[in-house]
Amino acid sequence: MKIVIVGATGTIGKAVAAALRGNHEIVAVSRSGGDHRADITDKASLEKAFAAIGKVDAIVSVAGGAVFKPLAALSDADFELCLHDKLMGQVNVVRTGWRSVRPGGSITITSGTLAQEPMPGAAAISLVNAGLEGFGRAAALELANENIRVNVVSPPWVTETLVAFKMDPTHGLAAAEVAKAYVRSIEGDKTGQTIDARKLS
Amino acid sequence: MKIVIVGATGTIGKAVAAALRGNHEIVAVSRSGGDHRADITDKASLEKAFAAIGKVDAIVSVAGGAVFKPLAALSDADFELCLHDKLMGQVNVVRTGWRSVRPGGSITITSGTLAQEPMPGAAAISLVNAGLEGFGRAAALELANENIRVNVVSPPWVTETLVAFKMDPTHGLAAAEVAKAYVRSIEGDKTGQTIDARKLS
Repeated sequence: MKIVIVGATGTIGKAVAAALRGNHEIVAVSRSGGDHRADITDKASLEKAFAAIGKVDAIVSVAGGAVFKPLAALSDADFELCLHDKLMGQVNVVRTGWRSVRPGGSITITSGTLAQEPMPGAAAISLVNAGLEGFGRAAALELANENIRVNVVSPPWVTETLVAFKMDPTHGLAAAEVAKAYVRSIEGDKTGQTIDARKLS
Repeated sequence: MKIVIVGATGTIGKAVAAALRGNHEIVAVSRSGGDHRADITDKASLEKAFAAIGKVDAIVSVAGGAVFKPLAALSDADFELCLHDKLMGQVNVVRTGWRSVRPGGSITITSGTLAQEPMPGAAAISLVNAGLEGFGRAAALELANENIRVNVVSPPWVTETLVAFKMDPTHGLAAAEVAKAYVRSIEGDKTGQTIDARKLS
């Protein structure tokens, strides 16, 4: 399969690329490197990248930032960043990318465990992640008409990220383990699902 | 209890007010009428209304529009409307309202059945409704520190709305039945929950 990874230079993106590379052709898309440059907050840059890449069998999005901050401290600008980066950015990957996906192919986007298991400081991120799961369920119904599957992978805290932030990595899941959920979405037959990466490791 | 209903002139809002009025003091807030005017897309108007109303025991939000349209037809403007009306509008009710709620009180916002059970045409609405459920779960954790409960009510299609739109009302739930979920949120002790209005009727 020819597989586009949007966010290919991130912690999870690199692990997903590594997990797929032996069996598939990978096209790396990133804001800052890879085969094609695109910024998910800039829909035109995604359209340009997909036009240059041509037909593919799968698109994976592992991109998008959001703000972790107590509810009382979240500003209007913080919410706007969350809405337009991780949330609409990934919605835009689906909106701009689906016409490039061959029948029988798939699109996989990324939410996160805070969607269903919040913690203090996660109000904006929980909104974004749960919103992506709702969007994925609905988009899958419509893209079924094009024979394109849509899933959402929900990663837990990633060990490498916890280490980078000098947080306790004990309850993290290694990026290579998280990547298995994306492989399952791409190579399996699920659609409209939120795949909890902890349940596949 | 003194209870603010934001969206008090809508189909569900009127039913919630009717269900609560015998036992509680109702303050009706609406874009177009009621005791105080406020538009949930205009955060300053909410701040002004809450300042005028003073301390309350509960806030209910039953306001917010979103766009029902196939994914391929949803424009950037459609998504922006959804993000800033029903989604951030209700987030703004929580952000601007919680300081007015007395300890022991509650805030109840509104999602909808399409969050978990989508249909074609619901991509933007499913995103909004699921996002509100994620936000509610997270906000409840933080506002527990203030002894304020936060719940989300998920109404199904409302019979009166289906009739108004000349749709088949067979599987709708009457607004008076939907209102029971809000009463449960306000008078009960749940927090951080999404209350499925179909399961209380």
